[in-house]
Amino acid sequence: MRHIMSPLDLTVEEMDRLMDLAADMEANPKKYAHVCDGLKLATLFYEPSTRTRMSFESAMLNMGGSIIGFHSASSSSATKGESVADTIRVAGCFADICAMRHPKEGAPMVAAEVSPIPVINAGDGGHQHPTQTLADLMTIRTLKGRLDHLTVGICGDLKFGRTVHSLISALVRYTGIRFILISPEELRVPSYVKEEVLNPAGTPYEEVIRLEDAIPKLDILYMTRVQKERFFNEDDYVRMKDFYILDEEKMKLAGPEMYVLHPLPRVNEISVQVDKDPRAAYFKQVHYGMYMREALMYTLLELGEDQ
Amino acid sequence: MRHIMSPLDLTVEEMDRLMDLAADMEANPKKYAHVCDGLKLATLFYEPSTRTRMSFESAMLNMGGSIIGFHSASSSSATKGESVADTIRVAGCFADICAMRHPKEGAPMVAAEVSPIPVINAGDGGHQHPTQTLADLMTIRTLKGRLDHLTVGICGDLKFGRTVHSLISALVRYTGIRFILISPEELRVPSYVKEEVLNPAGTPYEEVIRLEDAIPKLDILYMTRVQKERFFNEDDYVRMKDFYILDEEKMKLAGPEMYVLHPLPRVNEISVQVDKDPRAAYFKQVHYGMYMREALMYTLLELGEDQ
Amino acid sequence: MRHIMSPLDLTVEEMDRLMDLAADMEANPKKYAHVCDGLKLATLFYEPSTRTRMSFESAMLNMGGSIIGFHSASSSSATKGESVADTIRVAGCFADICAMRHPKEGAPMVAAEVSPIPVINAGDGGHQHPTQTLADLMTIRTLKGRLDHLTVGICGDLKFGRTVHSLISALVRYTGIRFILISPEELRVPSYVKEEVLNPAGTPYEEVIRLEDAIPKLDILYMTRVQKERFFNEDDYVRMKDFYILDEEKMKLAGPEMYVLHPLPRVNEISVQVDKDPRAAYFKQVHYGMYMREALMYTLLELGEDQ
Repeated sequence: MRHIMSPLDLTVEEMDRLMDLAADMEANPKKYAHVCDGLKLATLFYEPSTRTRMSFESAMLNMGGSIIGFHSASSSSATKGESVADTIRVAGCFADICAMRHPKEGAPMVAAEVSPIPVINAGDGGHQHPTQTLADLMTIRTLKGRLDHLTVGICGDLKFGRTVHSLISALVRYTGIRFILISPEELRVPSYVKEEVLNPAGTPYEEVIRLEDAIPKLDILYMTRVQKERFFNEDDYVRMKDFYILDEEKMKLAGPEMYVLHPLPRVNEISVQVDKDPRAAYFKQVHYGMYMREALMYTLLELGEDQ
Repeated sequence: MRHIMSPLDLTVEEMDRLMDLAADMEANPKKYAHVCDGLKLATLFYEPSTRTRMSFESAMLNMGGSIIGFHSASSSSATKGESVADTIRVAGCFADICAMRHPKEGAPMVAAEVSPIPVINAGDGGHQHPTQTLADLMTIRTLKGRLDHLTVGICGDLKFGRTVHSLISALVRYTGIRFILISPEELRVPSYVKEEVLNPAGTPYEEVIRLEDAIPKLDILYMTRVQKERFFNEDDYVRMKDFYILDEEKMKLAGPEMYVLHPLPRVNEISVQVDKDPRAAYFKQVHYGMYMREALMYTLLELGEDQ
Repeated sequence: MRHIMSPLDLTVEEMDRLMDLAADMEANPKKYAHVCDGLKLATLFYEPSTRTRMSFESAMLNMGGSIIGFHSASSSSATKGESVADTIRVAGCFADICAMRHPKEGAPMVAAEVSPIPVINAGDGGHQHPTQTLADLMTIRTLKGRLDHLTVGICGDLKFGRTVHSLISALVRYTGIRFILISPEELRVPSYVKEEVLNPAGTPYEEVIRLEDAIPKLDILYMTRVQKERFFNEDDYVRMKDFYILDEEKMKLAGPEMYVLHPLPRVNEISVQVDKDPRAAYFKQVHYGMYMREALMYTLLELGEDQ
């Protein structure tokens, strides 16, 4: 039995197979409409995350399975002092696979150690969010036709954004990747990401301050939200949050196939005017994210052989 | 693609067809048990409304479909600053149709403007609640055999009650309707309802203070809750809330076929002793409401041709 | 139509039949995979109880049915002043059977009196929790092969624990049962349990203070949580909570077939080291609880004749 805690739990080959499978699920939904008949997904969400939860649930429903679970810590047994380890053992009596979201880093790992069913980390604090990365990769591969030889700009809060660190870790495994890291000095990628991920892989990167300077060179622009809750004080937040807003003007500097991604939810870091631009790909990410979660659950449930 | 924001989005003929369809669904549930196989309803409830939500969900389940969504703003992405427009675009990646409840007037309309899937307004603040009106009409038509030539009493909070305004708007389109509006002076129907709805339609109405004076003349008595949260101060609430309580004594003044409706939940405006009276129709409304929502979703999903 | 409010609503013969049915459901899941197609369970949970709710929901999903409902009072119509009686009448328009959890003793009984569908008490305050007792009995019968001629130790908070009182009431109906009641003096079984349950049945029992003294004599050890919220003050809680912790050392005093049960959630009253002991049966209880709920709903829905 296998759990997914980090995007790196999957090899490049496994990721490729997942993307192939997800593409087949998108193209032939009826083929998979009953592969999970009688199976159950437990969505154990210790903090709310509507989009991620609905994505997992939709993916399981697409395969004919059912859903049990909870949406927030207040409706979980955690309020009665139950440990994550006990909760997953209980859920394992009911369900066949689990997606766990938790505000504390490492909680899904604790669950995986004792779980009788496969556990997928659906986000643990500032740590990992592997299925977001799967959605990102699938979107890039579908729109650009490849995952190698790309110049990828990542913009916004690069210090605290877990999706950023996961994406960098996943992309350095492909050849010809080059990053332009766009952020205020205070929110730069942490040094451990440089020392443990970028440098060992030999992936070139540059750090820039202004989004305008980077845009013309990019194949992909990955925007992130400046999360208010990550800031130490209100002043810093107010000062920095509007630095990196993508609007129609900035989009004019970009090439005709520079796709814009964003893990969502966005607040105001991408102007709604950009939504109509054919290069805006952030809702496509949601679409592909569902199919990647479907492919991942299908694989972890070892349903391939039954087909 | 079509959205339903107000009961008036449907013509009288469309309403009639919906009621015919709902009656067929009630009579022949098996015929519709799989028409939504593989389809999903998103219940996006930014404020709790158990009855309305369960009604939509049951209606979709009756047709073989599935449910995703959230039950309150605290478990939605709204807490992270996501707009209603973005949330519906995300939900549209997962689901095939959406029922949206929101405390702010007009929010479902904002959603409908960008939504890739049909949106049904499941109540927006004090504004509209079209599926409640569909439930009301279906109940009246089933019990009285017609929607024209009726004297309809509406009692309680006529100022703030959105179900009241929606019902009046829908009924003035039928011939021979006459209203008796029963309320304290402070909670009378707003003047715009008179000037924009009742007078243009030429529908006669009278305003009375005492429920006892109206009851003997009525074919239908529509009771409403005096919602505490609508009052400016506690004193006003305490003074007025018990003015308009329907009990066994008052029911003795009514004709043998004067049915009592109420949008629920009730607090104490209808005595529980009235529940046993065969003229009490408020739980029948819940029953018919489910079938009207089922008929509405079936129609908006354009499933008719597949049959 | 029948409701289940207390474990004693079922005769010993009915309990035996339920356990036989549950065992068949566990052994032959496919036989029951569609017996509830088109049916709905309403889980009306006025206070959160993830484990019990997920157990009921899984049981209904195992039979092909669907779920509607709410997870806490804040997302119910109770916040708008709706009575339990009205809520069950509304739910009865949508669903075919109901599991109700409520913080107030007797609330499910109030619901049952007016309900158009079978109501199962899923826990009402400190009062009853019949499906927990069904899970307990099924676990004991499966592991020990019998429900008679057993020495049963019950340890922890015997004063406030509703599962303890329910279990005692159920077990005194079998022959050859003997209890050892292990608790601090302050948390002993209430006198009404002795006078109304144990003594009339002629069931022998002794009360002891130290878990070590009891363990060697036991066939079953039923551990319970010392619920912080039941204590009058923090000092009492702190002083007593660690008195009755089961660990590897104490397990060495027990016989090779002394199974340990616990209604869960546990906090620290059973050391996690005991989890690996083959005599630890508390997660098996969760497993059997699901099948007992499945058997109970199947029976209350009178599906037996359709087979």
